[in-house]
Amino acid sequence: MTIARETLRWNGWGRLGESMELSRARETALLAELSRRFGRGLSPTPPPVELDALRLPPSKVPAETLARLRAACGDEGVRTSAFERVHHALGRSLPDLLRLRRGDLDRFPEVVAYPGDEGAVGAVLRIAASAGLAVVPFGGGSSVVGGVDPRSGAEQAGALCLDTTRLDRLLRIDRDSGTATFQAGIDGPALEALLAAQGLTLGHFPQSFEHSTLGGWIATRSVGQQSDGYGSIAELLVALRMVTPEGVVRTIEVPRSASGPDWNQLVLGSEGVLGVIVEATVRVRPAPRTRRIRGLLFRDFASGVAAVRTMRQAGIPLSMARLSDAAETELHLLLRRDPARRLDPTARLLDVAARAGWGAGRCVLLYGAEGAETRAVRRTLREARAIGRRHGGLPLGAGPGRAWYRERFRTPYLRDWLLDHGVAVDTMETAFSWSRLARGHEAVTTALRTALETGAGAGLAMAHLSHSYRDGACLYFTALWPLAPHDALEQWAGIKRAVTDAIVAAGGTLSHHHGVGTDHVAWLARERGTLALAALRGAKAALDPQGLMNPGKLL
Amino acid sequence: MTIARETLRWNGWGRLGESMELSRARETALLAELSRRFGRGLSPTPPPVELDALRLPPSKVPAETLARLRAACGDEGVRTSAFERVHHALGRSLPDLLRLRRGDLDRFPEVVAYPGDEGAVGAVLRIAASAGLAVVPFGGGSSVVGGVDPRSGAEQAGALCLDTTRLDRLLRIDRDSGTATFQAGIDGPALEALLAAQGLTLGHFPQSFEHSTLGGWIATRSVGQQSDGYGSIAELLVALRMVTPEGVVRTIEVPRSASGPDWNQLVLGSEGVLGVIVEATVRVRPAPRTRRIRGLLFRDFASGVAAVRTMRQAGIPLSMARLSDAAETELHLLLRRDPARRLDPTARLLDVAARAGWGAGRCVLLYGAEGAETRAVRRTLREARAIGRRHGGLPLGAGPGRAWYRERFRTPYLRDWLLDHGVAVDTMETAFSWSRLARGHEAVTTALRTALETGAGAGLAMAHLSHSYRDGACLYFTALWPLAPHDALEQWAGIKRAVTDAIVAAGGTLSHHHGVGTDHVAWLARERGTLALAALRGAKAALDPQGLMNPGKLL
Repeated sequence: MTIARETLRWNGWGRLGESMELSRARETALLAELSRRFGRGLSPTPPPVELDALRLPPSKVPAETLARLRAACGDEGVRTSAFERVHHALGRSLPDLLRLRRGDLDRFPEVVAYPGDEGAVGAVLRIAASAGLAVVPFGGGSSVVGGVDPRSGAEQAGALCLDTTRLDRLLRIDRDSGTATFQAGIDGPALEALLAAQGLTLGHFPQSFEHSTLGGWIATRSVGQQSDGYGSIAELLVALRMVTPEGVVRTIEVPRSASGPDWNQLVLGSEGVLGVIVEATVRVRPAPRTRRIRGLLFRDFASGVAAVRTMRQAGIPLSMARLSDAAETELHLLLRRDPARRLDPTARLLDVAARAGWGAGRCVLLYGAEGAETRAVRRTLREARAIGRRHGGLPLGAGPGRAWYRERFRTPYLRDWLLDHGVAVDTMETAFSWSRLARGHEAVTTALRTALETGAGAGLAMAHLSHSYRDGACLYFTALWPLAPHDALEQWAGIKRAVTDAIVAAGGTLSHHHGVGTDHVAWLARERGTLALAALRGAKAALDPQGLMNPGKLL
Repeated sequence: MTIARETLRWNGWGRLGESMELSRARETALLAELSRRFGRGLSPTPPPVELDALRLPPSKVPAETLARLRAACGDEGVRTSAFERVHHALGRSLPDLLRLRRGDLDRFPEVVAYPGDEGAVGAVLRIAASAGLAVVPFGGGSSVVGGVDPRSGAEQAGALCLDTTRLDRLLRIDRDSGTATFQAGIDGPALEALLAAQGLTLGHFPQSFEHSTLGGWIATRSVGQQSDGYGSIAELLVALRMVTPEGVVRTIEVPRSASGPDWNQLVLGSEGVLGVIVEATVRVRPAPRTRRIRGLLFRDFASGVAAVRTMRQAGIPLSMARLSDAAETELHLLLRRDPARRLDPTARLLDVAARAGWGAGRCVLLYGAEGAETRAVRRTLREARAIGRRHGGLPLGAGPGRAWYRERFRTPYLRDWLLDHGVAVDTMETAFSWSRLARGHEAVTTALRTALETGAGAGLAMAHLSHSYRDGACLYFTALWPLAPHDALEQWAGIKRAVTDAIVAAGGTLSHHHGVGTDHVAWLARERGTLALAALRGAKAALDPQGLMNPGKLL
């Protein structure tokens, strides 16, 4: 079991002992700046409650059901402790953290089962069916859209949480075909370590990488930070096995098929409502020998967007391109500046740039390439830079990219620290076609700023473009606001509603890579139409006629 | 209406007046060689029957239904003539041609409707529902797997053929996003001509290109000859509109989404069983300024396969790579040789090569690149050639590629001419992961040769690899055999059965790009499992509760 819950925060992001690692001087500078921007002093929130202080209703699962579960999963594989039930009670969205910190939880799984193989997963589903329990598949638990809420239907006796993390083995590597087959409960670091031992990589690095699972990536149509080069999990998936209440669905290992609709695609994004993904074959590659990230500074967001679009449509094989808008650029430069450090070449360059016309409104682009051949990587970066310069980009060298790469899995830790200091952070993302992207960026930013003003009296809204395609790109919005001391959840809900309405109205998708979960369900029919949802319900009815699987999500 | 049925052969492939254009000397040489290989003289088949000689049962559609259809589609848009009913009675598979040539048809659509817009498509579905008619969507009619057979259920009053070819307009081009939106009944040449006028291309060139439609490509998960560079229709599709008996399903124009499973993917490969695709937005690119195809000769199939695999896994951006096995290489070289031509540099080169060790067992690879920049195209070809040479490849220059490119849409015409001379030709295709490809090639070839021996007493079996991926490739088999004079259909069915069994047993897919239709239905549960099919039936039930849409296909 590679994800040990004991090593994870029960009420915050990620691993115990890990943090953003800002220096004290930077922390002070950041809080001062936020206070200045919000036009008010920050009020630290009361300290989070201890896990022991939570009062859980006793598990309602009858002893006979527990005995059957133990027969399937072993004694250690069936848990009803408060520790386990709290750890599996929520994901890691902002409202999840707000609830966990206050101890304000209204639902817990009745029992957590850790099946050890595919047969045991099937047995757990059968036991849950006969006990009238809903089943919530749970991998890393890092959902930020309510995807692992232990909900159950009115006629059900609560929810069983099916933790997949014992399914963590590498089953085989097919070197000729460049594929590897894993059990689906394996987490990011374990998967990459097993591949690295063979000189290989999957190249899938979502921000949750350190504590999310292969099965979770597939269930949520996950996208990694280097997806421009490697593709999303949808492109990386070759075949899978999924245990449903009616039996196993499996696809075969072929590179492509026209024997009807692509069944992998029905499972990709199914968010646990059809079954439990237990095994997956994925495309792997030789681990890159060279990885380089470079920075460019644009005079405004529009120039940067045009540059990224041109790079992408010219087919330049970048592994990433990440363009911050002016507001995000400004905050990042502030966060970057270390008051204790005397000589900072990037800071000096930026000062010179400001005088030369790259001042207010300027935007940083990080673009990267990686691969086996240094020469090819260099050529890619050279071609990208030439396009960037034609759009007014000023080369910033390797410094900004190095900092970003070092902290690429760290930034979510900042959220917990900011919450301690009375500042809420949430992120919302979408994708637009290029022709709608500028207006979409403006419309969503405006909606977000208005909502922050209305809901919090002040706030900061910023965004970056990442994960670009020939026909469009993802926009990823970050908002910070002073936390309402008493109605923080309502405050969040108002902001979330306004932003989501604006995204849908501007022609964006509800999610480029976070998923639907419970948070986006109310908007889904607007994006997809009711008929498409009815068809998905029809497919679900064939696989899960009793409606056991992950109630309240997606459908 | 860009596909005028009057310009197409009713009982053969493609357009009237078009042919493979072999010289008389080549024709004679080919027939002599086939006769030699089969070990017997060829018996020309009786001439095909005339369309007028077919005796069709009268259309069973009541006058009142016809009147309603005319109100929806206009007088010209509703046809019950023998010409129309025969033209829409079958696709273009070998058994289809055998039936058509003999006039041995057992099913005709009762009526052919040509709706002129999305509203009219919806009206036709409603009229069909109330009249108890099955609906068979029909684009170019080039299915080679029985995908447009006018079948109907036992409780239905026959089939209505819904011809989509009046839906042939370009609706809009979005230059920034690099997308174009068409009505889905537009055919290949019309679509490319409209794009070419704007300096653009879709880059999708299936062998049926000249008389197949955008909607048909989507419904069958079509793959073009340059798909290694442009992607298949699945990668080219951004959004669509599909009219189902319950209403319109549509997807939005975003580059990527994680708001549940990808709905485009439920429609891609749905073969008309869910509804009628009426509109599609596709990714387009600037038309290439340079297009080059080069040849390499390998000592054996294994070396060539290893070379293509290496090129593909190194990420070299080829637009195509097509490797013939020894049998196909031999026949192609024979077909290529013009007895009337004195000086043929390629032929001389091949003679020299034979003496230098590229003799029996040798295999030709054609590989190509195209794009806006000649320099990049050259680099791609250079990199590919270097890999090819490391695997023993002998450069053949541009000649073989030029010949292939000129005839790339022509080869199916050869089938009709061979049928005239008593020779049957059929093609069967699949995809294997690289690690299964060599054994798959051998197993299927062996099964095919055994089946030809058993069913026809003799025959030729050959294959090529095309459409390659990081993890595998398509294998495309061609068989020629002396046609049984009386039981040609049974003869074909036996051969087809043996090959399909061998493909499935070797771990291949039932189809890489031809589809399921009626011909592969019997094997589908072996590839997908019954549960996946039940889920698809569940989705269909929500969109088509009466089971109107294309009965007998896929499910």
